[in-house]
Amino acid sequence: MSDLLARLGMDHPIIQAPMAGTSTPAMAAAVCNAGGLGSLGLASAGADGARKMIAETQALTNRAINVNLFCHQTFAPDPARDARWIETLRGEFAKFGAEPPALLRDIYKSFLIDDDMLEVLLALKPQVVSFHFGLPQKEKIAALKKNGAVLFSSATNLDEARAAAEAGMDAVVAQGYEAGGHRGMFDPRASDDQLSMAVLTEILAARLSVPVIAAGGIMNGAGIASALKLGAVAAQLGTAFVGCAESAADAGYRAALASEAALHTTMTAAISGRPARCLANKFTSLSERGIDAANIAAYPNTYDLGKALNAAAKAKGETGYGAQWAGQGAPLARFLPAAELMAALISELKSSLKENP
Amino acid sequence: MSDLLARLGMDHPIIQAPMAGTSTPAMAAAVCNAGGLGSLGLASAGADGARKMIAETQALTNRAINVNLFCHQTFAPDPARDARWIETLRGEFAKFGAEPPALLRDIYKSFLIDDDMLEVLLALKPQVVSFHFGLPQKEKIAALKKNGAVLFSSATNLDEARAAAEAGMDAVVAQGYEAGGHRGMFDPRASDDQLSMAVLTEILAARLSVPVIAAGGIMNGAGIASALKLGAVAAQLGTAFVGCAESAADAGYRAALASEAALHTTMTAAISGRPARCLANKFTSLSERGIDAANIAAYPNTYDLGKALNAAAKAKGETGYGAQWAGQGAPLARFLPAAELMAALISELKSSLKENP
Repeated sequence: MSDLLARLGMDHPIIQAPMAGTSTPAMAAAVCNAGGLGSLGLASAGADGARKMIAETQALTNRAINVNLFCHQTFAPDPARDARWIETLRGEFAKFGAEPPALLRDIYKSFLIDDDMLEVLLALKPQVVSFHFGLPQKEKIAALKKNGAVLFSSATNLDEARAAAEAGMDAVVAQGYEAGGHRGMFDPRASDDQLSMAVLTEILAARLSVPVIAAGGIMNGAGIASALKLGAVAAQLGTAFVGCAESAADAGYRAALASEAALHTTMTAAISGRPARCLANKFTSLSERGIDAANIAAYPNTYDLGKALNAAAKAKGETGYGAQWAGQGAPLARFLPAAELMAALISELKSSLKENP
Repeated sequence: MSDLLARLGMDHPIIQAPMAGTSTPAMAAAVCNAGGLGSLGLASAGADGARKMIAETQALTNRAINVNLFCHQTFAPDPARDARWIETLRGEFAKFGAEPPALLRDIYKSFLIDDDMLEVLLALKPQVVSFHFGLPQKEKIAALKKNGAVLFSSATNLDEARAAAEAGMDAVVAQGYEAGGHRGMFDPRASDDQLSMAVLTEILAARLSVPVIAAGGIMNGAGIASALKLGAVAAQLGTAFVGCAESAADAGYRAALASEAALHTTMTAAISGRPARCLANKFTSLSERGIDAANIAAYPNTYDLGKALNAAAKAKGETGYGAQWAGQGAPLARFLPAAELMAALISELKSSLKENP
């Protein structure tokens, strides 16, 4: 049992990934109550929504919970670029008899400029606060640590991980290229070495002094055991929980995950404006048919249009434009209540560690 | 101990990857004599060279050896496309006071059309024959199996792996996206799901009835243990052996592998004409500076030019144009004689399987 797990009162090295829009208080609490670490993705919730979700989770568990915030850089509005992107997708809206919105909105407030969110965290004291897309300012880090929070940051390479450790993060989440959802790179314009979970976990475990949490493609106890062998203190699983009864995933998302489509995922920036891994669907096939990346609007404005397109398509019964985030391990997905999934993961992990080939 | 390992008389689930141009009879024999499976990459050797390398290896070990052939499709000559590619790189040759060749040659004969190579294999009877880039014709497979050979094929996805199993392969090498060197996809024009070693190994182990060998990013005993947990019967390591005393890697390649450059590898088709993972160097930076992929000549004609450019650069002391193939695990490379590396891997593997976190 690592120090980190002991400090958080975790019985098992299993973290349910935050997954903004998909995780729920019921899911996070079920994972915590089973001895893992449940997480809430608060990036899309706003301070008031976050307050409600944290309180709801805390009412369901006395265990440590993890809340996740996005620390993306905010760019100056660029209506001309937004307009080019709206025009690029106008034809897709037309297929469903819809018009795209005239303007795109900056729908997700970065934690970097969200002081109300900081107040919520300081007041409700979730035990773990984790960051994606970058690190918060020194003052926010200091305030959270002084308040007793344990801090995690995602990292996709050694440079990001070193920056996270130097900024005072208590653990680093090694996000492999196979991971579903938004790739956590601090600068989305930087060149990406696309390191796999296994390679990144080993390199970070060898070169960092803070604990490493492995993320990307891990779907079962064998995968968790495998990550522990590489030096991780715990594994973070997202896609494994998407099909849970407590998940907010809609029917189309669940059906796609259960189908052979799960064998094909794509990293695309066309849905949200930042690279994210999605099940192969109508939206990702758009991005493969030669959309000029230079025309894609900034994050999260692109996501405003992506959500509008999905709504227009769903209104006509077409579910193939959803942000159906999934990692490459999607073909191994199960569809169970979170407590049952946790029981299976714990049992598989024990067997896998015991069996020596 | 799996049936496959027992059949091949292997003491340890460790395969040294073939690595045409880098592996040597001395390397392969040292691995075999240490209880692993040593391999020769014969794709660039031709039938006469192959005969010599196999005989040399057999003189150094009585254990099973693995020889690897490329089964790439051969395309009709396209001198106009070759000429465009020569012009694209003319400026690079000029930096070293050199002229590119006037014509590109089809320098590697595919095993699909190399009956002399088949004769060598039937005569010298290496115990394992493995294939990359696709599968040989039924008649060649039948002749080799009748002659007692155990057959492996690389696969980068489930479809390729199923085709390999159906064609009679005795094992499939699950080549993850993080693997160094040439990506084994059967059709280089097909869309690539870029599955990681961990994900691909788990999916193939779950869905195939033939044994799965994990490849990509594995550099030490912990990595091997990790792959075994995912269902692999053995791990295949390439980059881990590049720095061995017995390797044919030149000084520039070794120096790059030992440097911080190892933190960055790139999948590029610009060196050989097919996607291959290389240490970040002058050649890969060329490919990132917006070369039009449509201008790259076919494999292996592109490689003929790539080798000429490397020779021109090396003649002036510049080693940054080499085909410095390496997987993402390159920062974990060691520089030991193969027997010492094998001893370390075996010892690390035992410890890793014993230690339960």
